[in-house]
Amino acid sequence: VARHLGNCGHDVALWSHNAQVAREINEGHANTRYLPGCSLPAGVAAHTELGAALRGCEAAVFVVPSSHLRATAAAAAPHLGADVPVAVLTKGIEIGTSKLMTEVVADELGGPGRVAALSGPNHAEEVARDLPAAAVIAAPNETVGAFFQQAFHTDLFRTYVTLDVVGVEVCAAAKNVVAIACGIARGMGMGDNTAAALMTRGLAEMARLVRARGGDPLTCMGLAGMGDLVATCTSRHSRNQTFGAAFANGESLEDFEARTHMVVEGARACVSVRNLARACGVETPIADAVHALLYEGVPVAQAVGALYARTPSAEFYGLDNPGGTKQHEPRP
Amino acid sequence: VARHLGNCGHDVALWSHNAQVAREINEGHANTRYLPGCSLPAGVAAHTELGAALRGCEAAVFVVPSSHLRATAAAAAPHLGADVPVAVLTKGIEIGTSKLMTEVVADELGGPGRVAALSGPNHAEEVARDLPAAAVIAAPNETVGAFFQQAFHTDLFRTYVTLDVVGVEVCAAAKNVVAIACGIARGMGMGDNTAAALMTRGLAEMARLVRARGGDPLTCMGLAGMGDLVATCTSRHSRNQTFGAAFANGESLEDFEARTHMVVEGARACVSVRNLARACGVETPIADAVHALLYEGVPVAQAVGALYARTPSAEFYGLDNPGGTKQHEPRP
Repeated sequence: VARHLGNCGHDVALWSHNAQVAREINEGHANTRYLPGCSLPAGVAAHTELGAALRGCEAAVFVVPSSHLRATAAAAAPHLGADVPVAVLTKGIEIGTSKLMTEVVADELGGPGRVAALSGPNHAEEVARDLPAAAVIAAPNETVGAFFQQAFHTDLFRTYVTLDVVGVEVCAAAKNVVAIACGIARGMGMGDNTAAALMTRGLAEMARLVRARGGDPLTCMGLAGMGDLVATCTSRHSRNQTFGAAFANGESLEDFEARTHMVVEGARACVSVRNLARACGVETPIADAVHALLYEGVPVAQAVGALYARTPSAEFYGLDNPGGTKQHEPRP
Repeated sequence: VARHLGNCGHDVALWSHNAQVAREINEGHANTRYLPGCSLPAGVAAHTELGAALRGCEAAVFVVPSSHLRATAAAAAPHLGADVPVAVLTKGIEIGTSKLMTEVVADELGGPGRVAALSGPNHAEEVARDLPAAAVIAAPNETVGAFFQQAFHTDLFRTYVTLDVVGVEVCAAAKNVVAIACGIARGMGMGDNTAAALMTRGLAEMARLVRARGGDPLTCMGLAGMGDLVATCTSRHSRNQTFGAAFANGESLEDFEARTHMVVEGARACVSVRNLARACGVETPIADAVHALLYEGVPVAQAVGALYARTPSAEFYGLDNPGGTKQHEPRP
């Protein structure tokens, strides 16, 4: 993100909690642990002190893991003016509060109207190589949306704008859970048909959650929904999918995260998505299966069996059906 | 399909125009050209004469390429009782008439109420290995839908039912065009972000067509829409995607079809999808780009440039937006 914004002509002040990473960025214009082979523009400078990074900024962009977002936003609050627009690229739902990431940031910073979310099929490894991509910016306020659209938009990184912040953020969090399920299926030797069916049923699960939280199910058909879901579930760059495959082959969550230096956001989102679903009275069989596997010690065959044991109901139950078509229960 | 239905316990009489294929099926219980390594159950018998295959059947299933469907249905008409339910697995839109495949069959057989469509992410190579998959059966009539659901459903091949035949069939035809576009992007060295963005914008294009033809845009979020689109655009089993990649590297449509003994349905659908779109007043920039490449001699770089030159408009323009969220035009 810093590289992209730097290449857009912005001066970027990056905060890193890791002094070694900051030094490498400032001296070597690179971050070889996370993006080997990628050079950063001269306009990107790294800081280890948050206040120094934020001083005089015209806008702030949050990209920390979800479990660190509230603390980071709280630490940033004294350094950010009340009118500075904020974009949140962190994806997740806070455990305990069931709040979305923009809501967590707004809690700590105040001024919810200036807090936007950016999402979409945007693997960093490919954006860093200037391969074409598209993203959606969700802001509760047209001015803030237009500001970040202008800040991020290039011919090769195309930005769309929406007012449906809730839809975009619920999709962003929930899709990582589906990606773990797809990775597990692949790790078990299943094929592209199975993965596509899991993605589709996963998207229906996401749409029920979006609707229950007051968002627009149509958002699930867009870049933040099916777009990001597909990129996350099919790409070798997806850590959630890669973890699922490793888990099916016996590696634990702890071992995987230690080995890859990556946070598997879907493993956290699985917990928070289920809490949100239960609070809203929404069924999430795929998130339930992933939870059973990761946290309840249920063997893979048994969790998959529980999915098969379900009687398929209407394809879009839990959603309004604007075309008025009717879906039937299957005969067993 | 014959193998699956045979394994479901049905007696299957298969028609093949190729005597050698029929002989291999009857004597060797295999079809080594199209499904090497896959054995067919004893209940599957092949015929070279259509009347013999259809004699006394309780249901008929059409799986011929789209360009042969009308002639095959016309030839079948004298051999099929007026009440025999018919499932159409052929995907496409007829060139000249812009009719969907069930409409073509109903034209020739009569009794449109008994004609269903089956679609979804169902690569034959994987269904033949009993890997889990799911499909949707679209029938204008609940009895016919339930009949085919019961005929096709197993634990590993899960069937859902819908009344939205138009939505399912428009998705089935249009998705092959998007798969060619994704293949071309891959052949040009683009990555997973680009493919996901193309699929998402392609699904929006499909949804506009579904809406214009009187179907339900929500169908695009299901197995026949995003499910089949993802399977077609990401799988190595997809001939449309594989052709796109080969085309980007200089192979012609004719050479590809001759080499693989496969019909690239998306190359025909590209023509019929655009005709339908123009008749309905719907924009299809991705189908336009594929058409320019395949039939107008436009170089790849120029067709891609035309896509980039578009100003991204609202993410879901041309659809009703049930949640009432507003999408903006980007600032250039």
